Amino acid sequence: MQMARNPKPRARPTITLTTDFGLSDSYVAAMKAAILKQSPDAVLIDVTHEVPPQDILAGSISIERAVAGFGPGTVHLGVVDPGVGSHRKILIVEIARQWVVCPDNGLITWTWRRLGPGKAFKLTWRPRHFSDTFHGRDIMAPAAGMLTVGRKLSDLAVRVSKIELLDIAPVSAGAKLGQIIHIDHFGNATTNIPRESLAGAHPRFRLGRKSIGMLKRIYLDVAPGEPLALIGSQGLVEIAVRDGSAEKVLGIRVGDAVYVELGR
Amino acid sequence: MQMARNPKPRARPTITLTTDFGLSDSYVAAMKAAILKQSPDAVLIDVTHEVPPQDILAGSISIERAVAGFGPGTVHLGVVDPGVGSHRKILIVEIARQWVVCPDNGLITWTWRRLGPGKAFKLTWRPRHFSDTFHGRDIMAPAAGMLTVGRKLSDLAVRVSKIELLDIAPVSAGAKLGQIIHIDHFGNATTNIPRESLAGAHPRFRLGRKSIGMLKRIYLDVAPGEPLALIGSQGLVEIAVRDGSAEKVLGIRVGDAVYVELGR
Amino acid sequence: MQMARNPKPRARPTITLTTDFGLSDSYVAAMKAAILKQSPDAVLIDVTHEVPPQDILAGSISIERAVAGFGPGTVHLGVVDPGVGSHRKILIVEIARQWVVCPDNGLITWTWRRLGPGKAFKLTWRPRHFSDTFHGRDIMAPAAGMLTVGRKLSDLAVRVSKIELLDIAPVSAGAKLGQIIHIDHFGNATTNIPRESLAGAHPRFRLGRKSIGMLKRIYLDVAPGEPLALIGSQGLVEIAVRDGSAEKVLGIRVGDAVYVELGR
Repeated sequence: MQMARNPKPRARPTITLTTDFGLSDSYVAAMKAAILKQSPDAVLIDVTHEVPPQDILAGSISIERAVAGFGPGTVHLGVVDPGVGSHRKILIVEIARQWVVCPDNGLITWTWRRLGPGKAFKLTWRPRHFSDTFHGRDIMAPAAGMLTVGRKLSDLAVRVSKIELLDIAPVSAGAKLGQIIHIDHFGNATTNIPRESLAGAHPRFRLGRKSIGMLKRIYLDVAPGEPLALIGSQGLVEIAVRDGSAEKVLGIRVGDAVYVELGR
Repeated sequence: MQMARNPKPRARPTITLTTDFGLSDSYVAAMKAAILKQSPDAVLIDVTHEVPPQDILAGSISIERAVAGFGPGTVHLGVVDPGVGSHRKILIVEIARQWVVCPDNGLITWTWRRLGPGKAFKLTWRPRHFSDTFHGRDIMAPAAGMLTVGRKLSDLAVRVSKIELLDIAPVSAGAKLGQIIHIDHFGNATTNIPRESLAGAHPRFRLGRKSIGMLKRIYLDVAPGEPLALIGSQGLVEIAVRDGSAEKVLGIRVGDAVYVELGR
Repeated sequence: MQMARNPKPRARPTITLTTDFGLSDSYVAAMKAAILKQSPDAVLIDVTHEVPPQDILAGSISIERAVAGFGPGTVHLGVVDPGVGSHRKILIVEIARQWVVCPDNGLITWTWRRLGPGKAFKLTWRPRHFSDTFHGRDIMAPAAGMLTVGRKLSDLAVRVSKIELLDIAPVSAGAKLGQIIHIDHFGNATTNIPRESLAGAHPRFRLGRKSIGMLKRIYLDVAPGEPLALIGSQGLVEIAVRDGSAEKVLGIRVGDAVYVELGR
């Protein structure tokens, strides 16, 4: 990837937030206060704060969606951080002409694998005082803010060659086996099978021993309560149930195998 | 309704969002990214994303509250869209000097019945590429954004004379029978009985066989744990329980009949 | 506290919101609409809307966090208001060079006790028309907005000498007994024991009969599933369980006693 170190910021600096903090406490507002102190004009966009506690894979998938949706110069702050206060690094990753600020614990994985690779930097900047338990507020939020107001990356971070990545990736073209990587609010199950990996004119899908059938276009292509496979809005094969929850109806879970069979 | 096609936008364009997407995924952020690409200065206000999945009536009531609360030129984006990808139309409705962008599946009902009628248009604009499963992000969000930056309605949509409406409306003056149309977070139950429909000096209310008594002014007018009827903040009769949940205490549900009896 | 009546507003007026309204209804958006009518440029920050219904202590703790996080001139709107429509006062409290607008029912307590005392004023301003059940929208939100656009406090409110405060406070230096005042989304339990109250080099903590041990620095200082005491991000002693929920594992509840023992 050939790009300037500091992409020209948008007219309004934009920062997205993805955490496992939930919405019942003041933690998210504390991070926003810390961002606004550095970047008073920032537009703050919540991606989600309902990542299941310490679920790095789930957080990783939400962050990739944020990077895919927003444009050049956007900063994405991801905080799912069970190792807070330990020696785990904090990363700034330059990817798709945007930045992701997050702990080096695999949270960057899905963005790196679908939209990257990027360039990884270790955040060396630290404030004079910071807590041992809330680096999201004390270190990562100010760093995200500083990136949007023209602070040079080289003042904040140094290039690193090795980062933590989870053992999950989009399958290759023609792959016969994928897996469920995410289940959404509606109970729709996303796989790691991108549209462009599908070989042959009429792929069929199987979930364990349960046949899901050929790829459909929309939910209404099957009867209410029936399962189907379709290309979801992420460009990945999704297993769904019309007017229902695939999670409940099919008992589907993250990690379940999904088989791709050649149609005829 | 006599109004210019394009009401003068507010200093800061404002767009509200009402969906059944929940807050645990990145869908809402994806819509916001799409809006901001068209309207970078837009103020984005979440009404709710916790409409029960595919509950068009509930979404309809939240959208009406948004239109009632905001001022001229505001755009309201409503996405509860089980028919996504089918031939259902997408509407732009001009109403109360504001716009509502939503699928033509009844979601406009409560706004139309309480604040309208408005003028309905069918959105004909489409982006070059769009998914089959997420028109909220790919079609409706950009259209909402374009409305706030002066794009002419006639470039985007054509007038239609027929729209889908649910079979629900505010009762008329002097009506003896209403129903529960919404139950809120506190368990308070809203009826379709507007304050101005109440005839006589001292109406009394009955929920099935359960007498609720005369109209009270505030929750503290009854003892803790006791039910009451009062005019809620929407200007509609509401059945509540002081310091408790009418939903739980009275077993009240959407659709339940509420009888208005003349007081003496 | 020696301060000007009207601290110079920030470049962008900022208003935070803390309520027990939940996120499934349109109440929060209704308050934001009312704020923006007074203060169109306001930056609106949600602290939380998931204060348990009518839980004034919980709301009080979230508001203190918001005041601690934001800077001079910020206005904090707190609405947990079971007495709405009664004769309870509405307060504007000037504290830490910021303002809190909330009902006079104890909601200011934790801010007052940790960051104050402040100066309390009774809001006398009323709009021409307002509901009996939603003063958050009709009275407090507009008042908060007006404070950010230079409206003089003396036009809106009069000084009062007595306010409602809950019976809860940070413990004093050397105290032997504290209590759990809040349990967060992760199940971590916050006490009313500030770091600076701890006497002696090696305090140990006990929850009822359960020994929690010496103060640790970070969660990783104990094995997974083990309980620990540490200084949380609020500067208060917190009881947690590594990679788990202290609430569930220890059966901990708000109000539980926490004993501080001298280490040796």
